[in-house]
Amino acid sequence: MSPLVRIIIGSKSDGEICQPIQQYLQDLGITSDFFISSAHRNPEGTKELVISAEQEGIRLFIACAGMAAHLPGVIASLTTLPVIGVPLKGGSLSGEDALLSIVQMPPGVPVATVAINGVKNAAILAAQIIALSEPDVRAKLQAYKLKLKEQ
Amino acid sequence: MSPLVRIIIGSKSDGEICQPIQQYLQDLGITSDFFISSAHRNPEGTKELVISAEQEGIRLFIACAGMAAHLPGVIASLTTLPVIGVPLKGGSLSGEDALLSIVQMPPGVPVATVAINGVKNAAILAAQIIALSEPDVRAKLQAYKLKLKEQ
Amino acid sequence: MSPLVRIIIGSKSDGEICQPIQQYLQDLGITSDFFISSAHRNPEGTKELVISAEQEGIRLFIACAGMAAHLPGVIASLTTLPVIGVPLKGGSLSGEDALLSIVQMPPGVPVATVAINGVKNAAILAAQIIALSEPDVRAKLQAYKLKLKEQ
Amino acid sequence: MSPLVRIIIGSKSDGEICQPIQQYLQDLGITSDFFISSAHRNPEGTKELVISAEQEGIRLFIACAGMAAHLPGVIASLTTLPVIGVPLKGGSLSGEDALLSIVQMPPGVPVATVAINGVKNAAILAAQIIALSEPDVRAKLQAYKLKLKEQ
Amino acid sequence: MSPLVRIIIGSKSDGEICQPIQQYLQDLGITSDFFISSAHRNPEGTKELVISAEQEGIRLFIACAGMAAHLPGVIASLTTLPVIGVPLKGGSLSGEDALLSIVQMPPGVPVATVAINGVKNAAILAAQIIALSEPDVRAKLQAYKLKLKEQ
Amino acid sequence: MSPLVRIIIGSKSDGEICQPIQQYLQDLGITSDFFISSAHRNPEGTKELVISAEQEGIRLFIACAGMAAHLPGVIASLTTLPVIGVPLKGGSLSGEDALLSIVQMPPGVPVATVAINGVKNAAILAAQIIALSEPDVRAKLQAYKLKLKEQ
Amino acid sequence: MSPLVRIIIGSKSDGEICQPIQQYLQDLGITSDFFISSAHRNPEGTKELVISAEQEGIRLFIACAGMAAHLPGVIASLTTLPVIGVPLKGGSLSGEDALLSIVQMPPGVPVATVAINGVKNAAILAAQIIALSEPDVRAKLQAYKLKLKEQ
Amino acid sequence: MSPLVRIIIGSKSDGEICQPIQQYLQDLGITSDFFISSAHRNPEGTKELVISAEQEGIRLFIACAGMAAHLPGVIASLTTLPVIGVPLKGGSLSGEDALLSIVQMPPGVPVATVAINGVKNAAILAAQIIALSEPDVRAKLQAYKLKLKEQ
Repeated sequence: MSPLVRIIIGSKSDGEICQPIQQYLQDLGITSDFFISSAHRNPEGTKELVISAEQEGIRLFIACAGMAAHLPGVIASLTTLPVIGVPLKGGSLSGEDALLSIVQMPPGVPVATVAINGVKNAAILAAQIIALSEPDVRAKLQAYKLKLKEQ
Repeated sequence: MSPLVRIIIGSKSDGEICQPIQQYLQDLGITSDFFISSAHRNPEGTKELVISAEQEGIRLFIACAGMAAHLPGVIASLTTLPVIGVPLKGGSLSGEDALLSIVQMPPGVPVATVAINGVKNAAILAAQIIALSEPDVRAKLQAYKLKLKEQ
Repeated sequence: MSPLVRIIIGSKSDGEICQPIQQYLQDLGITSDFFISSAHRNPEGTKELVISAEQEGIRLFIACAGMAAHLPGVIASLTTLPVIGVPLKGGSLSGEDALLSIVQMPPGVPVATVAINGVKNAAILAAQIIALSEPDVRAKLQAYKLKLKEQ
Repeated sequence: MSPLVRIIIGSKSDGEICQPIQQYLQDLGITSDFFISSAHRNPEGTKELVISAEQEGIRLFIACAGMAAHLPGVIASLTTLPVIGVPLKGGSLSGEDALLSIVQMPPGVPVATVAINGVKNAAILAAQIIALSEPDVRAKLQAYKLKLKEQ
Repeated sequence: MSPLVRIIIGSKSDGEICQPIQQYLQDLGITSDFFISSAHRNPEGTKELVISAEQEGIRLFIACAGMAAHLPGVIASLTTLPVIGVPLKGGSLSGEDALLSIVQMPPGVPVATVAINGVKNAAILAAQIIALSEPDVRAKLQAYKLKLKEQ
Repeated sequence: MSPLVRIIIGSKSDGEICQPIQQYLQDLGITSDFFISSAHRNPEGTKELVISAEQEGIRLFIACAGMAAHLPGVIASLTTLPVIGVPLKGGSLSGEDALLSIVQMPPGVPVATVAINGVKNAAILAAQIIALSEPDVRAKLQAYKLKLKEQ
Repeated sequence: MSPLVRIIIGSKSDGEICQPIQQYLQDLGITSDFFISSAHRNPEGTKELVISAEQEGIRLFIACAGMAAHLPGVIASLTTLPVIGVPLKGGSLSGEDALLSIVQMPPGVPVATVAINGVKNAAILAAQIIALSEPDVRAKLQAYKLKLKEQ
Repeated sequence: MSPLVRIIIGSKSDGEICQPIQQYLQDLGITSDFFISSAHRNPEGTKELVISAEQEGIRLFIACAGMAAHLPGVIASLTTLPVIGVPLKGGSLSGEDALLSIVQMPPGVPVATVAINGVKNAAILAAQIIALSEPDVRAKLQAYKLKLKEQ
């Protein structure tokens, strides 16, 4: 089955915190692919990953970045698919810089921002979006919500 | 045609800034309904608006609130539909309190947060999500994206 | 003797820092009960804990939460009993997000907020409130205040 | 009927925003008195207002101050009655300085802090506390809570 | 004489504050051109403005943007010419978001950041850089520095 | 020789960082005494330490406190001697709360604030003030300033 | 009588807020002189004002500056006389930048910092310092303190 | 070959983080010299390092400092050569104080600010500036940019 979610992170060093997103998605019945591509160091490579996505059946992006975190916004500038942005805590300012760099997008180009280091919520939000046309994912989300209550 | 997006705001005084969301959605071919219901002053009424939504065909929520902005998170706690949260600037802290109260949701219950007072982006993000199963909306979004470039 | 204070925390992981509240209350002659119930993951369960409280003789709530800390506000929305909120430090922003999410409540629904991780002060404030109708607690508070001076 | 709540503000210039607290309390069936007494400019006068309160039947304090807002904490250091602190927005930092100066009290001496400029919530919190031993106030609070829903 | 500095701003609404940069440069003997091109709304157009610059004799960029201000960083990702970034104050957070989005660039892709709304300093910094190979500009800068003292 | 500077800290736990002030003063030829007395936990004891100071020949105070750091301001409210305030880093907010609680004093009652944890500068500032009437201290300060250059 | 306090401000535009310092000092029996000299635009002129001060009988400096407010620290680097720093509110960040630029001085070179725009407290602090060797000023300060209480 | 870049740091303790700048420059074909000279503790020595630079063939400065980081601004006040400022993280406020103290320079005296602890970017920015008149450096920068993409 071809992946529905494309995860892009800006730096190899963010892999440890971001890699689990694939497993969270898998648990909700969603396949994904995973790329490391900095918007700043490799803008053309990043652009190709975005441009090619729609034809490959990708339905949305999850982009994770720290500091002056431009990656989610750069992706959003290149597509009309939804982009979920995860600000990462790395750097001196505990992720506050990344949060503002991701969430404060100008009118016309939104990024759906989750909490600092909120990788699990990025996966769940992706599933909520995909569930609108995938009843199986909806069922898995509802089961997950029940499990949350029981914890 | 029955509405696809339910907009809820926490206070009548936020109407002026939030009411245009309906027009932005309309321009992208999406019908919506609009309610004023505070999570704090009317928790039961808010809950009913959320619980009833799925059967009524609502696909996602846009929730706008200021200060200790709990409304989007309270909605997200009651549904598996996507919730877009708009932090509002009102109050002493220029919306920074509302931003943190909306975006910093705990694992398990995401809110897709946009910029402070980012009402237009809330509508566009809603359209991006709905467009995954509505080709007409996708076409409108792509036309809008072209228009952005020309500005 | 039936408990006078209901302590609710949002996550099991906050237990270590919050559990001592019961001992602090006990030292001031006040019995309490203690629950883990997330406003976001288990809104119905949280509501039941609040709704049932008044009949059970509970006089006030102490609610502790981190990040987008909605728990104290959600409790306050469901009762006219006093709610003491304790912002917790966990998360990337050192509790500043929790502080703003708890203290910046809108007009009509107050939360009595204490310092970040201020669990001891939550207990003392609870005792100060209960002491208004319990002379024994007043005496214990006055003895405690004398002891503070001698430290 | 002798007043149950003593309101103290730090500066005459804060009168306009703080004076309505007396009316809010009156609406909830609570009498109050109102003093201007700076903790910094008149520490002895402030102390007398606090020390004399308990014998005069005062049950709690509401203290409002801006900038390095020490008034609520100074009152709390002198009594075991509950102290509600209202950070005021005046000054260059929009009340963030007052908020931190009031809420971040050290262990042993709590202040029940409400939102920046949260004068109405200070009154409601006072009523919630007093209602524990005054059924008439409880009834008024419950009526008020119903009215909130209908707004 | 062909322009040495390319000024790019992200939004027409920033024109009033940014347009004077051309005059400041002119006063220091430097010609410039001026474009409005949003990194988010028109990424391809922005890219072309950057890619074409080197051949046209442009020596450096001045980029001005507000909120999640990605424009300077996006330009820097596409060139090895120096990029001066000016965070703009517009938006809810007084330019603090723009400052962090511009200055906190990751290793490898610097942006030379000046003060919030620091349009005059952007021009002077540009002149300081160009003066390294243009003695006339150096002379004008030294005259300007003398004039500063006399003010 | 009777002490010229009275150092007061709010909590025994701040002793390790603050105790060196006495040595710094000694190195500049100034004797001091040192007390632990919380403005919040022991307001009367603190007041006595301030009131008695002038007759005992004390010329200025150095007061160190963290969180809602009221100690320097409380001292300043009780004397016309200069008060130097040192915000301490302890607590969740890295001393930013203490800084604002100390520096943002209202008109009429100043505190001479130094950096967060700036205990050495508190001693040097004290010496600069005392040196105005003690030529020996002036000489020691000038020697110290020369030594700084050589480092 | 020769002036005892030298007031230096960084920019003519700060004159309106800073000029009253001279009157505040006059009311406390202290003569002063007043200069406009930017540490950044006129470092040599600023240095001369500092170097010449001691021989002219100046006992301390009051320095006022906004934004990256280096003036007080630059003065402190050139003298062993006390330097009082007043952060000014001008600029985008409400004086928070000026506050940190003035108060966070490194070990060895203190600046006695007062509140943002705290021009009156700068004058009172100067009087408290000078009063240590001028009994007339002490008397005026004590009269002022009494007047504060009566307000 | 005589050095083109002069690196100045304010404190020996910053050496470990700042020393690598020389190697980064070397890798881009640029020689540099390196001095420790505090603007606050040794203003005359710092001035000499700046004044002498132009004749010695220095083309720009890199200045690194923490807390109330005045060093870059002090250098900029003394020269018309470009000054790159690196805010350092040391101290209680994670470098936010240093960032504001460096970037918020007043009109007339710019500092080209990079990220907190952004020592590598300081070197690259220096190379971008020098490359305008040194084709070899341009070539090395272009090779470096290609290498960035491949990472």
